[in-house]
Amino acid sequence: MYDAVIIGTGPAGLSAAINLKLHEKSFVWFGSAGYSDKVGKSEKIANYPGLGLISGNELNQRFFEHAREMGLESTDKKVTNVMPMDDYLMVLADNEVYETKTLLLATGVLTAKSYEGEDELLGRGVSYCATCDGFLYKGKTIAVFCGAPRYEHEVEYLAGIAEKVYLSAGYPDCKLDLPNVEKITPIKAVRGGMKASQIELHGGTVIDIDGLFILRNAVAPGTLVPGIETDGPHIVVNRRQETNIPGIYAAGDCTGRPYQIAKAVGEGNIAAHEMLEYMAKGK
Amino acid sequence: MYDAVIIGTGPAGLSAAINLKLHEKSFVWFGSAGYSDKVGKSEKIANYPGLGLISGNELNQRFFEHAREMGLESTDKKVTNVMPMDDYLMVLADNEVYETKTLLLATGVLTAKSYEGEDELLGRGVSYCATCDGFLYKGKTIAVFCGAPRYEHEVEYLAGIAEKVYLSAGYPDCKLDLPNVEKITPIKAVRGGMKASQIELHGGTVIDIDGLFILRNAVAPGTLVPGIETDGPHIVVNRRQETNIPGIYAAGDCTGRPYQIAKAVGEGNIAAHEMLEYMAKGK
Repeated sequence: MYDAVIIGTGPAGLSAAINLKLHEKSFVWFGSAGYSDKVGKSEKIANYPGLGLISGNELNQRFFEHAREMGLESTDKKVTNVMPMDDYLMVLADNEVYETKTLLLATGVLTAKSYEGEDELLGRGVSYCATCDGFLYKGKTIAVFCGAPRYEHEVEYLAGIAEKVYLSAGYPDCKLDLPNVEKITPIKAVRGGMKASQIELHGGTVIDIDGLFILRNAVAPGTLVPGIETDGPHIVVNRRQETNIPGIYAAGDCTGRPYQIAKAVGEGNIAAHEMLEYMAKGK
Repeated sequence: MYDAVIIGTGPAGLSAAINLKLHEKSFVWFGSAGYSDKVGKSEKIANYPGLGLISGNELNQRFFEHAREMGLESTDKKVTNVMPMDDYLMVLADNEVYETKTLLLATGVLTAKSYEGEDELLGRGVSYCATCDGFLYKGKTIAVFCGAPRYEHEVEYLAGIAEKVYLSAGYPDCKLDLPNVEKITPIKAVRGGMKASQIELHGGTVIDIDGLFILRNAVAPGTLVPGIETDGPHIVVNRRQETNIPGIYAAGDCTGRPYQIAKAVGEGNIAAHEMLEYMAKGK
């Protein structure tokens, strides 16, 4: 049983991880090893107090350095599900189970809208996790949305299993070049009855598929944690960063605007302190 | 009419000031030119993301540098009163009046308790402002509590007016050495009928005085802003950092625990964004 699980390696997740580490708690930190894509892509940041005018890339480096100095390590296993149990939480990541007393959602905000049909067909031919579900598509035809370069190795993994991969990249200059991977224009919808069987592209083209993998930076919180209270794309929290589920906290962009680094580190700090209190109560 | 007034030059006030400046708003920033005494006195800070392990003094220097880079200037005039008017706010500092659309209280938390009798006798022989009320004590006997070295010039100012000054310093090694200034042990209470007339020291000594000046880092928020909702020493705010008074926001330690720099910069950032929205509504 871990003291905590943190999902997200952006500024909010980092801020919380630093504080839990200083308090010598046991926790697993899920997220990209490159820390925040969003921070890294910011051209210039002028309003993170103490660092003057700094490039997003440099700030990301500093975050990374700070984590390294403190001996923090993250895992890029993909959390697919969180289940609240009676007095602890179960977290599923790449088909492994983690038990924890507390959980912090620092998952960022999903700026892209879901595809039509995505929510309905999730788990029925639509998957967010290549390593979890890839084996189901041996020799089959699949479509993949690849939201960031760091998911390209997952696309390669899928291309090694499936016979044919239709690839929609969510960024310019996707370098992937494999004989059985065909690039397509943006996906509009996924359709099917019991199982996903077709995607429709913007422009109207329809392609028959056996499955659709959606590899995005962030997952809608309601999909990740069934029963969590949301307001549009945001998780509802109070001033203590508590969600409606005991033991589950949220911080950073996923809790709402302003989408700012200073806000994220502040909320991560508050959440960590509240999680420490929750643990101390012996829950 | 200013767009904003910020009270406090700690991390919360700085964070807000940076954001208002980036949005080219007109504002007055009240506080110590040395920025945060509290940050500066921290031996080591490990949990301000991006800066690793850093001394409080160095972090304060970085805050100061950031402010300088952005052309931010603060004034050390002392705000003594805030009065909400119909659709703007009036701020009184060193007997000057400032009109503003919005106000941020980033005043820190008053860890010292008030003296017995202080609240009752405020304005009747008890003053928080040497430059405002000093002239009333020409040739008289006063007591002064000096809470930090940066108030020493105010004590000197008072010593130039009053005939006799009893000085209680809130820190070790107070260097003030003037012929008419006598150092005393900590003050316990101030007493009087219509006006303050005596102080009592811890230990029981009683001294007759004509007035008492209390020069502290922070003032109880309810004293500064009559009618503001508080919870013990804290100002009550919601997730948008709004207080119960329209146009008045609060951020940092003054809104409650955890007393953390990351939390303070986060709340200052949120408050500034909310203030911008409030201004945009043409209020």
